[in-house]
Amino acid sequence: MSGNSIGQNFVVTTFGESHGVALGCIIDGCPPGVELSEADMQHDLDRRRPGTSRYTTARREPDEVRILSGVFEGQTTGTSIGLLIENTDQRSKDYSNIKDLFRPGHADYTYQQKYGVRDYRGGGRSSARETAMRVAAGAVAKKYLKQVHGVEINAYLSQLGPIKAEAVDFEEIEKNAFFFPDASKLDALDEYMRDLKKSGDSIGAKVTVVATGVPVGLGEPVFDRLDAEVAHALMGINAVKGVEIGDGFEVVNQKGSEHRDLMSPEGFASNHAGGILGGISSGQPIVAHIAMKPTSSISVPGESMTAQGDSAEVVTKGRHDPCVGIRAVPIAEAMLAIVLMDHLLRHRAQNMEVNSSTPVIGMR
Amino acid sequence: MSGNSIGQNFVVTTFGESHGVALGCIIDGCPPGVELSEADMQHDLDRRRPGTSRYTTARREPDEVRILSGVFEGQTTGTSIGLLIENTDQRSKDYSNIKDLFRPGHADYTYQQKYGVRDYRGGGRSSARETAMRVAAGAVAKKYLKQVHGVEINAYLSQLGPIKAEAVDFEEIEKNAFFFPDASKLDALDEYMRDLKKSGDSIGAKVTVVATGVPVGLGEPVFDRLDAEVAHALMGINAVKGVEIGDGFEVVNQKGSEHRDLMSPEGFASNHAGGILGGISSGQPIVAHIAMKPTSSISVPGESMTAQGDSAEVVTKGRHDPCVGIRAVPIAEAMLAIVLMDHLLRHRAQNMEVNSSTPVIGMR
Amino acid sequence: MSGNSIGQNFVVTTFGESHGVALGCIIDGCPPGVELSEADMQHDLDRRRPGTSRYTTARREPDEVRILSGVFEGQTTGTSIGLLIENTDQRSKDYSNIKDLFRPGHADYTYQQKYGVRDYRGGGRSSARETAMRVAAGAVAKKYLKQVHGVEINAYLSQLGPIKAEAVDFEEIEKNAFFFPDASKLDALDEYMRDLKKSGDSIGAKVTVVATGVPVGLGEPVFDRLDAEVAHALMGINAVKGVEIGDGFEVVNQKGSEHRDLMSPEGFASNHAGGILGGISSGQPIVAHIAMKPTSSISVPGESMTAQGDSAEVVTKGRHDPCVGIRAVPIAEAMLAIVLMDHLLRHRAQNMEVNSSTPVIGMR
Amino acid sequence: MSGNSIGQNFVVTTFGESHGVALGCIIDGCPPGVELSEADMQHDLDRRRPGTSRYTTARREPDEVRILSGVFEGQTTGTSIGLLIENTDQRSKDYSNIKDLFRPGHADYTYQQKYGVRDYRGGGRSSARETAMRVAAGAVAKKYLKQVHGVEINAYLSQLGPIKAEAVDFEEIEKNAFFFPDASKLDALDEYMRDLKKSGDSIGAKVTVVATGVPVGLGEPVFDRLDAEVAHALMGINAVKGVEIGDGFEVVNQKGSEHRDLMSPEGFASNHAGGILGGISSGQPIVAHIAMKPTSSISVPGESMTAQGDSAEVVTKGRHDPCVGIRAVPIAEAMLAIVLMDHLLRHRAQNMEVNSSTPVIGMR
Repeated sequence: MSGNSIGQNFVVTTFGESHGVALGCIIDGCPPGVELSEADMQHDLDRRRPGTSRYTTARREPDEVRILSGVFEGQTTGTSIGLLIENTDQRSKDYSNIKDLFRPGHADYTYQQKYGVRDYRGGGRSSARETAMRVAAGAVAKKYLKQVHGVEINAYLSQLGPIKAEAVDFEEIEKNAFFFPDASKLDALDEYMRDLKKSGDSIGAKVTVVATGVPVGLGEPVFDRLDAEVAHALMGINAVKGVEIGDGFEVVNQKGSEHRDLMSPEGFASNHAGGILGGISSGQPIVAHIAMKPTSSISVPGESMTAQGDSAEVVTKGRHDPCVGIRAVPIAEAMLAIVLMDHLLRHRAQNMEVNSSTPVIGMR
Repeated sequence: MSGNSIGQNFVVTTFGESHGVALGCIIDGCPPGVELSEADMQHDLDRRRPGTSRYTTARREPDEVRILSGVFEGQTTGTSIGLLIENTDQRSKDYSNIKDLFRPGHADYTYQQKYGVRDYRGGGRSSARETAMRVAAGAVAKKYLKQVHGVEINAYLSQLGPIKAEAVDFEEIEKNAFFFPDASKLDALDEYMRDLKKSGDSIGAKVTVVATGVPVGLGEPVFDRLDAEVAHALMGINAVKGVEIGDGFEVVNQKGSEHRDLMSPEGFASNHAGGILGGISSGQPIVAHIAMKPTSSISVPGESMTAQGDSAEVVTKGRHDPCVGIRAVPIAEAMLAIVLMDHLLRHRAQNMEVNSSTPVIGMR
Repeated sequence: MSGNSIGQNFVVTTFGESHGVALGCIIDGCPPGVELSEADMQHDLDRRRPGTSRYTTARREPDEVRILSGVFEGQTTGTSIGLLIENTDQRSKDYSNIKDLFRPGHADYTYQQKYGVRDYRGGGRSSARETAMRVAAGAVAKKYLKQVHGVEINAYLSQLGPIKAEAVDFEEIEKNAFFFPDASKLDALDEYMRDLKKSGDSIGAKVTVVATGVPVGLGEPVFDRLDAEVAHALMGINAVKGVEIGDGFEVVNQKGSEHRDLMSPEGFASNHAGGILGGISSGQPIVAHIAMKPTSSISVPGESMTAQGDSAEVVTKGRHDPCVGIRAVPIAEAMLAIVLMDHLLRHRAQNMEVNSSTPVIGMR
Repeated sequence: MSGNSIGQNFVVTTFGESHGVALGCIIDGCPPGVELSEADMQHDLDRRRPGTSRYTTARREPDEVRILSGVFEGQTTGTSIGLLIENTDQRSKDYSNIKDLFRPGHADYTYQQKYGVRDYRGGGRSSARETAMRVAAGAVAKKYLKQVHGVEINAYLSQLGPIKAEAVDFEEIEKNAFFFPDASKLDALDEYMRDLKKSGDSIGAKVTVVATGVPVGLGEPVFDRLDAEVAHALMGINAVKGVEIGDGFEVVNQKGSEHRDLMSPEGFASNHAGGILGGISSGQPIVAHIAMKPTSSISVPGESMTAQGDSAEVVTKGRHDPCVGIRAVPIAEAMLAIVLMDHLLRHRAQNMEVNSSTPVIGMR
């Protein structure tokens, strides 16, 4: 399996460049009998879609997904599902100015050195535009997980630059353009972003993703532990520089007596572990955080180099998100859904006959 | 491929329980013609080995590795390499007291629920004892990477509880039992650990791992980006709760103009990215940090549950590390080496003919 | 990796049903810098295409393939290549008569039992229509193999029912509608097929595929030996019931002194082995044969069963090949090309530094 | 996954050379709760073991397998199972005469060219000695398949040179040293082999393997069809040159009306398909045949070449099977068991909820 696939039993493979003809994806291993239509995916695609608020890129793509196979009479058939989104907003603009220029903080230089050739239009394959297909595939996983196991997956922006969410109100998340769970900070966010846009700069962010209702037992030690697989999926999102499970880096200065989640027949007393013990889901909510770097596509001039090895200065103009962390919210949900789905299938492949006599406990 | 394998072209598969007969591993895909003997692995095994200082578990295992195949007349032959470490210190102790007891913060409960049965002796497969084989396999990768590409991989303890390394002196790391790079903090560490042992508690830690000399171009977007794969490998180490690449979670409050690494024909001006751009190595040093939780094996009593679902209290006695982060240092090196080795092979499979005309730059 | 992908470093994943919206495929791992256009694939697609002669199905599909990604300015970029063929000839016919009927010798019954649901229109995913995408992907592999290593891959119909090719003239193959290499048998074939069509029955066939110029060293023992991988790829073509490498089943009554291919500095004296020794290509031509069963879509009535478990009689009407072996010729070439391409990349991942001092020999 | 692993959810990875220290294997993905001891594997190992009759090699290896992990208190725990067989009969003989000599029909030349180095002692990794571990792993699969689904897997020698089994009496197979199912031919076999040994030559053979009780639904189209996977596993056995499913190459001259297996509520009327339709098991017996080439290790002199590229003559002396097909019988069973086991797990990963309302039929 090469790098454009993820999963083992529920496998998602994608293709597509930012300014190419289309984006596409194949989902292989989806259980049969799941009711599925384009509408199931469109909601999350719309949440990820550019042009939905003044704080995300102004590029307008309807991002309409089409199901090309694997669904018959409204149900999945167990065969591979082909999905397609055509790129409509490919402005026939002139790229000659960036053709031979490496933007600092971007993948231009590394793609050129790896492959010797690159599609420089809008970042080509390295653009976050490809995550549209991840969101579509993730929506299929989300639907199955919810229907069959009652799993709910929700992400939100937990921090934008210096502004942290202090309260987490899940009802609030979908009500604002930031996916921010703390309504008391919305004005501050607004003001911060307005100033940022004026300065032509960008800002980092932290996204938190939570899955509830996950059955006990998912994860395949020792290498494909659930936490390792979640880290793989989340760190694989463009611009992510850090992943935490549960308390994450706070554990560095925690004592064992403080960190371990005590348990009793009534349930777990706390969830420092973030729902994963020994690489296996514990039945508690799975909690992960990711750090999103500020985009390097800014109008602040920066020192750079050409493909020929000459000095150059870069100023990025055009349609770019000042905080890519915002649109990462539905992407993080999708990636977690894909991992959980794959591990649900992997788990039951091996452990279908298991009937543990130990009672399942939840949070107290 | 199930959960006990890691890698695609350089594949490491392991087996073995804490108190079983032996630990073993198969390395598949190692290039032929590499000089290899047990001595090449023994050095790192000794660094990881328990019983080497008073701050790690007192369990004594010689951890002598034997090469069973794949090496002929001192050279790898390209066939699969079998490695074996026999467990010698299997005290025939009585485990009846923990047989039906779930230690909080451990994998006892999740293994029981996943498999319906578990080897409760010393944690069985969930014990960090299995990482001995990772260290052995990692030593093979390290040797090849160094010989063929001059890659150097070094890890160190960057923080233990409240004590942070403020200076990083690579010479210092191997001179103290903490793998700590800042000699000025050694007395403080000593004192901290002495108090900790008295209290019967444990403490978290942060480990940093750095690889220099990594060629440009490693990493397979979009899912097997190098950062995603590093995150997978490092989060898969027992007790790890967070992974950062480069600036990690500091990016949440960074501006784009501050984060992006400017570049010129003379090289990169900084390394906030930690050596990876767009999921592909940039030729700069690869820098990753991991958060290690405090072990839950402490003598402080804790509320728990039995396999039958009754309340119980747990007090862990016996040989345990008060800070598992210390011994994670050689393990982190090994995991990074395995990932880089695998991606070196994956990269050249596809890109052998690539001859980029763009000059390779390093750090200024 | 689930069942709709083939390959490890050169990975082909397909989707699409016989009467669905479209067929598609993703090629992941293709080396960058290969000149590629739709025209490179169209030739083989046309060879496989139905409706090209009166001995193949009358269904008319233009089978025009479109490249959706992975190619920029006429060259592959190393990113995943998306391919699409839209189904145009989806007669809006009434399928109610076969909806609940299992055609004997077809996959209707097994798909129903495996998935609980099936797309019954024209066989759905089990139709050989999906092989169009294999042919498209195979054309990419063929092009690379030829350009970089001078590998030539050619298949032909070596037997149709009782009529065997006694001479093999590669020039002849593309001149007749049977891909038959022995011009002296063409009249006999014509007559045989005319009678067969009248009878409403179908006939089996044998296809031979030969690759020349394959470098020494491809194949990954012990499980992914080249012969095992070729067998996997060829047996995976619809209707194939047997695969032979070299002398195949003739070896059952051969002596060792007769079978082994003697060798000398001047080359191999014979090629009973079919170009593979110990699971690794020897540099001799790779020769494989496949047995194609007669299609079960015939107008001869047959006893069957309904989805509800009742007795039924089946008579297949409509557009069907009386000998599916004919159109299997380009498919067999494609599958061998995909396997060789994948193994070329796998081989060089591990063995790039190998410089055997032993001279390479060919056939005498 | 590199070439020394087979399977996706039930993964077997092996190591070991003919004259190395030991052979070993890791089974990953075995369901927990299976009663398992060394005795379960020893029976098949003894059937495969050399030195059991005067018609197989005189090399004596006790082939005692040890379970090193993954089994606790007599049950599998779901963790990876480590198996080991130490090589005891490593005669410290002088190999200098074959060190630089390529035996025709062997893998000496191809291993040398692929890897640049090879373990020449007894064929190293290319020796069929490695199949001992396949037999051990296969025994685990056989046990599970039998216990949970009542699957029975039996192979036999269906032809040795010119002598074909005309009757198939499964009771007879284990009663003679040839695994031959037709007692009326035993004298002829005896005489044939006596003459063959005198001549110093070897002979090919055909082995048939049958699995009964296989559930409907196993196999993952379109590439990992069950027939494709069986072909991969069987063609991957040393010396195999052909694989047939059901009627195999006989289909080349069959009519559709003759080949298709008619079906009714009472069951299938015939089994030309060999139990697989559309790449998915039909519930009928799975029937496969393999062609085993005559070993090239014969005392008849043969023209060859040295590693330096000089002419040479080869005469193989020592302990060799005149018909390697005989000992292939338990190996074929093991490989079929491994494939079925893996596909059982793969199938239920995706299709656990499927409840087809169509009745399951068997053979009439």
